[in-house]
Amino acid sequence: MPRSGEEARRRLQQAALELYAERGFDRTTTAEIAARAGVTERTFFRHFPDKREVLFGSEATLRADLTRSVAAAPEGLSPLEVLLHAFRKAGHILEGNRPFAEPRLAVIAATPALRERDLAKAAAMADALAAALRARGVGDRLAGLAAQVGWVAFHHAVGAWIADSGRSLDEHLDEAFAELRTLAVEMG
Amino acid sequence: MPRSGEEARRRLQQAALELYAERGFDRTTTAEIAARAGVTERTFFRHFPDKREVLFGSEATLRADLTRSVAAAPEGLSPLEVLLHAFRKAGHILEGNRPFAEPRLAVIAATPALRERDLAKAAAMADALAAALRARGVGDRLAGLAAQVGWVAFHHAVGAWIADSGRSLDEHLDEAFAELRTLAVEMG
Repeated sequence: MPRSGEEARRRLQQAALELYAERGFDRTTTAEIAARAGVTERTFFRHFPDKREVLFGSEATLRADLTRSVAAAPEGLSPLEVLLHAFRKAGHILEGNRPFAEPRLAVIAATPALRERDLAKAAAMADALAAALRARGVGDRLAGLAAQVGWVAFHHAVGAWIADSGRSLDEHLDEAFAELRTLAVEMG
Repeated sequence: MPRSGEEARRRLQQAALELYAERGFDRTTTAEIAARAGVTERTFFRHFPDKREVLFGSEATLRADLTRSVAAAPEGLSPLEVLLHAFRKAGHILEGNRPFAEPRLAVIAATPALRERDLAKAAAMADALAAALRARGVGDRLAGLAAQVGWVAFHHAVGAWIADSGRSLDEHLDEAFAELRTLAVEMG
């Protein structure tokens, strides 16, 4: 039996990821996830409301980290610079979790139910970033556009980093934002 | 009884939208939608697989129009210019449908099940646009980033147009892409 709640949580996530990859999301039950993690099903439900959420357990932490970093970013940065600053700060959460991140993305891409949840989480994340930019004085609608565009670039960078382990997430973030800049500047 | 299949389809969409706005998506049945449209429930299912899809009936047309316009855009345009060109061309579908577009967005925003479907449709649309850009020779990953960023700007413009009926969708599209350019150029 895992000792701490935090350890049980991590083991449940690992077990779920393995089972989804082995036999598919639809054919995996919460009881099986709990069994593989060496905990009871009741413990599963103490940590996660359903078998989709088990793969999104770090989202709340990431969101809190990101919005805090947006608030604390230096004065004088432009909205996308503020977001890049925040993504670089929060990147360590993903960096420390790389062995989990890669199979997680693969399972989500292959499972419509998880893909829908992932898209909903992404929309909520962009909303939170927009609110954090507004709190810095960025105009209402511009904050919404900046947050969504920034989130797209972040997602793009994470995908590139998963595919290319030779470079750090920071390097991929810088590159994605540079590509974004080039795309926009090329407009006449 | 509506005469043509196209008319029945339009009436079903209108009836669904009214019922979702009046009593909520969850408390509306396909039988009720069919009754209000003056058709049988069997006719409903000839046009739509479920009561979510009834609000997304124009997506396939829009996607086909957009990818065709991307393919036919003049040589020498940058990726985001190609997308803006395609969005302006396809805008007439929305312009002709404005009385439907506004309550539709409000119902989607208020209904998690519809919001999830909307996000999935948006992701599919961005994928289709990325494929169309690749077919024009845009690099693999850059095409993905451009399509997602372009789609965000399009969505932003549609939202602004719904909120501000004083200006055309084209004007809002130009403004959204100009804002995108400004955001990116402000990056150091």
